Amino acid sequence: MITGKNYIGNQLIAEGNKTYKTFNPQLNIENTTVFTEATLNEIDQAVQLASKAFKTYRDISGQKKAEFLNAIADEIEALGDELIETYRSESGLPEGRAKGERGRTIGQLRAFAAHISEGSWVEASIDKAQPERQPLPKVDLRKMLIPLGPIVVFGASNFPLAFSTAGGDTVAALAAGCPVIVKSHPMHAGTGELVASAVVKAAQKTEMPNGVFSNINSSGIEVGQQLVKHPQIKGVGFTGSIRGGRALFDIAAQRKEPIPVFAEMGSINPVVLLPEALKEKGKDWAKTYAGSITLGSGQFCTNPGLIIGLKGEDLDVFTSELAEEISKIKPTCMLHPNISNAYQSNKAKVLQQPELNVLAEYGDEVQSNFAQQVVLKVKGSTFLENKTLHQEVFGPFSIIVECEDDEELEDILNQLEGQLTGTIIGNNTDITSNKKIVSALQNRVGRIIFNGVPTGVEVCPSMQHGGPYPASTDSRFTAVGVDSIKRWVRPFTFQNWPNSILPDALKNENPLEILRLVDNVKTRVKL
Amino acid sequence: MITGKNYIGNQLIAEGNKTYKTFNPQLNIENTTVFTEATLNEIDQAVQLASKAFKTYRDISGQKKAEFLNAIADEIEALGDELIETYRSESGLPEGRAKGERGRTIGQLRAFAAHISEGSWVEASIDKAQPERQPLPKVDLRKMLIPLGPIVVFGASNFPLAFSTAGGDTVAALAAGCPVIVKSHPMHAGTGELVASAVVKAAQKTEMPNGVFSNINSSGIEVGQQLVKHPQIKGVGFTGSIRGGRALFDIAAQRKEPIPVFAEMGSINPVVLLPEALKEKGKDWAKTYAGSITLGSGQFCTNPGLIIGLKGEDLDVFTSELAEEISKIKPTCMLHPNISNAYQSNKAKVLQQPELNVLAEYGDEVQSNFAQQVVLKVKGSTFLENKTLHQEVFGPFSIIVECEDDEELEDILNQLEGQLTGTIIGNNTDITSNKKIVSALQNRVGRIIFNGVPTGVEVCPSMQHGGPYPASTDSRFTAVGVDSIKRWVRPFTFQNWPNSILPDALKNENPLEILRLVDNVKTRVKL
Repeated sequence: MITGKNYIGNQLIAEGNKTYKTFNPQLNIENTTVFTEATLNEIDQAVQLASKAFKTYRDISGQKKAEFLNAIADEIEALGDELIETYRSESGLPEGRAKGERGRTIGQLRAFAAHISEGSWVEASIDKAQPERQPLPKVDLRKMLIPLGPIVVFGASNFPLAFSTAGGDTVAALAAGCPVIVKSHPMHAGTGELVASAVVKAAQKTEMPNGVFSNINSSGIEVGQQLVKHPQIKGVGFTGSIRGGRALFDIAAQRKEPIPVFAEMGSINPVVLLPEALKEKGKDWAKTYAGSITLGSGQFCTNPGLIIGLKGEDLDVFTSELAEEISKIKPTCMLHPNISNAYQSNKAKVLQQPELNVLAEYGDEVQSNFAQQVVLKVKGSTFLENKTLHQEVFGPFSIIVECEDDEELEDILNQLEGQLTGTIIGNNTDITSNKKIVSALQNRVGRIIFNGVPTGVEVCPSMQHGGPYPASTDSRFTAVGVDSIKRWVRPFTFQNWPNSILPDALKNENPLEILRLVDNVKTRVKL
Repeated sequence: MITGKNYIGNQLIAEGNKTYKTFNPQLNIENTTVFTEATLNEIDQAVQLASKAFKTYRDISGQKKAEFLNAIADEIEALGDELIETYRSESGLPEGRAKGERGRTIGQLRAFAAHISEGSWVEASIDKAQPERQPLPKVDLRKMLIPLGPIVVFGASNFPLAFSTAGGDTVAALAAGCPVIVKSHPMHAGTGELVASAVVKAAQKTEMPNGVFSNINSSGIEVGQQLVKHPQIKGVGFTGSIRGGRALFDIAAQRKEPIPVFAEMGSINPVVLLPEALKEKGKDWAKTYAGSITLGSGQFCTNPGLIIGLKGEDLDVFTSELAEEISKIKPTCMLHPNISNAYQSNKAKVLQQPELNVLAEYGDEVQSNFAQQVVLKVKGSTFLENKTLHQEVFGPFSIIVECEDDEELEDILNQLEGQLTGTIIGNNTDITSNKKIVSALQNRVGRIIFNGVPTGVEVCPSMQHGGPYPASTDSRFTAVGVDSIKRWVRPFTFQNWPNSILPDALKNENPLEILRLVDNVKTRVKL
């Protein structure tokens, strides 16, 4: 069923001659399907189709678009075991994770379907005319959110389903009314093609215009660059490394018409251990964090890579417990030899730095592509001086920073780059007596957690996934949850527009029965 | 009362030795006050103060911030005639315009005060914990908008009050909780200093932290560049030329930590004349447009610089009527010799292009700095081929494009750069039989007007002022109306956070009585 070809709109095409295969990291062998990288001509065809599709897709009702998204969910479910097996063969991840991620992907599709079917998300706003107003009459103004145009989505290596082909970025853009061209991630091109086939089937069944979705194969960086440079592309979604995300951001910013790039990049997700909680429950937290650091081989963007506490006996207890617990955990398989090799070399780079104390390093021999976890300890002053220690090491890796005092701790927080999350381990006394620390942490992150772990990103309206640079390129948006639709839309105002040809969301009679702002009051009334 | 110094926080300082004066374009002489450009050290001081002020200002309640904004409005009113006279001496604009713009500025301040005092703008969202959920418990998540940090605002040449020192960008940022450093526009430095004194007085009276506002003098581009490059600046607001806005956008994009730049730049605001309306009311519209093109010497970003219609007798009638009407209008004074000279040279550049038909050109001699209006006519094919004709000529200038047929008209709309506004002149028959044209226009603009003129930008929630590039650098935001606050904020999530230390907007008891999304339902209830 997997052909190795590109979906250019609804058609499977492979005109090119550059090919590649995916890799099974558990078996340490290449998979058999040959994938053909898209040619410049195929890329252009996909964009032209998307532009044409946009002319009709943008005006299709929320109800109809919701049918499309639900149909994608149905078709993904219908792929059954083939999807799970392909996913596993291309990621080394266990069955439970594969099924969980499929569930999350389907859940996202259905949540967005419900969101756009209800319809209030367009933020309709109406200011009625006041023809008698002095000194000048007021015109009738009606505003709503409309889609930007064709969007390019880059599949993520570490979420072959939930942040890839029909993942968060794609569903948000399709829900907004934007056609999507996916630059499939080369590590899971087969999974990508299967999901793409589900999207295409759903598009055909629900009569969406050809070109509303394309899936483009590529093993290098050129195809993605071409897509971002294409003048008819109006936005970019990306999940991956800082280097990759920044490169796309730079290309987009240098275009004649710059376009928004929402890139969710790296993060070391600082955890602050406050003294009272550390005294009370240090051992429990150590156990919990041993699990969080190694969860999914540490291949989560919310992995806790930095734990900060005040010097003293309680921190020592935490530290030795964490070391003991984490040493017991059996290493697991990483996504790909490239990921595993990058983990090895990034880890080695940090381990070469001066004044480190290696607390735990899984020493037994492991299978190829399995990740040996490491936990280090450094002094606050060492950490402050050495920016290498501030960089993400993608994998089961964490640094404990031992601070001399509150001021050093606050200083460290202020010096950190932007982060997706920050965590405070504390009790009520801790919180009230460490306001400056909490405030400093809040200023560097997009989500702050109290007595928990940063791993585990709930998909719901109140989730913020994105933070100050370089956690993401634009902290004003989220990559998770229904609000992520806001990345792909712009406000648009109709002035004195005849009611009969206004979009339904703005018509006097409010046929969609949505919540609107009418003369500055939120209401569902008809006018 | 005008000292020529910079406000670095609450203090008037002038350490530098680079000075300049403003210019009275009506009298064609320099004004007398000597302004001192800020030094690198002063710029850094202003940013350091702003960063420090941010630590407290961000957490000040909406009520308190509203008092500050209302106090600014009061203090601007209290400046009385000195402000109006200074404004006029630095802009050449008439008294009615000066007072009108002051009223608008004060109105904006009070509108934002009401907006943040009510408080629902923070988009509070609560997803309650579900500890019993299977297979995994759901954590408590609460999200709201929080401020980005210190913002730099560039004053606009053409709105010395409403888009400058305490204008739209500044009030939106202050309302959001961001300290503001204004890069004062050199053409109206005196007006800027007066307004800055009002802001500083208001800040002191309402006990805002020193550094919440600074006003920086500069006559060149270096000071602005330094401000945008400063690592502690987190966003930029700009109104002005494409060249100026793009230069700042590029600097911001190339920073180690890129920051958002919201620049509202050029626009030629296409107007489409549909055939039936042209037949019915062509002469009336010609009269109306003669007024709109010359309003305020054409120095509005929504000035109609492009009028497009189908070849034929009705267009000829419109054209000759417009020519006749516009020739009768007496030229008025432009803002500054630099603006007037730029108008002359941009106009001359267009007039050198081949295949133009000059319909009307005010020929009588005028005072220095007064703008002689021009209206040209070209064929659709000429316009399509010559991109020079697509560029804004800032001043009382407009091009009429005569199209062979609907297809050429649609083609022209598709080829246009992004615009702030687009206008359709039509009746109901026109509208229903020209859907593709309306749709093409909609795709290039931020606001579409039916049977009206683009000049006149109402300040209200349903206004969108901003459009696809280069109308603005990010079409996802507006520069006018209370929604412009969204440029300066980011969503932030608290996970499992103790109720007692949550911000009021997210507390169980909803002490602010704001509208919140609770488990996906909009409500003002307490939990």
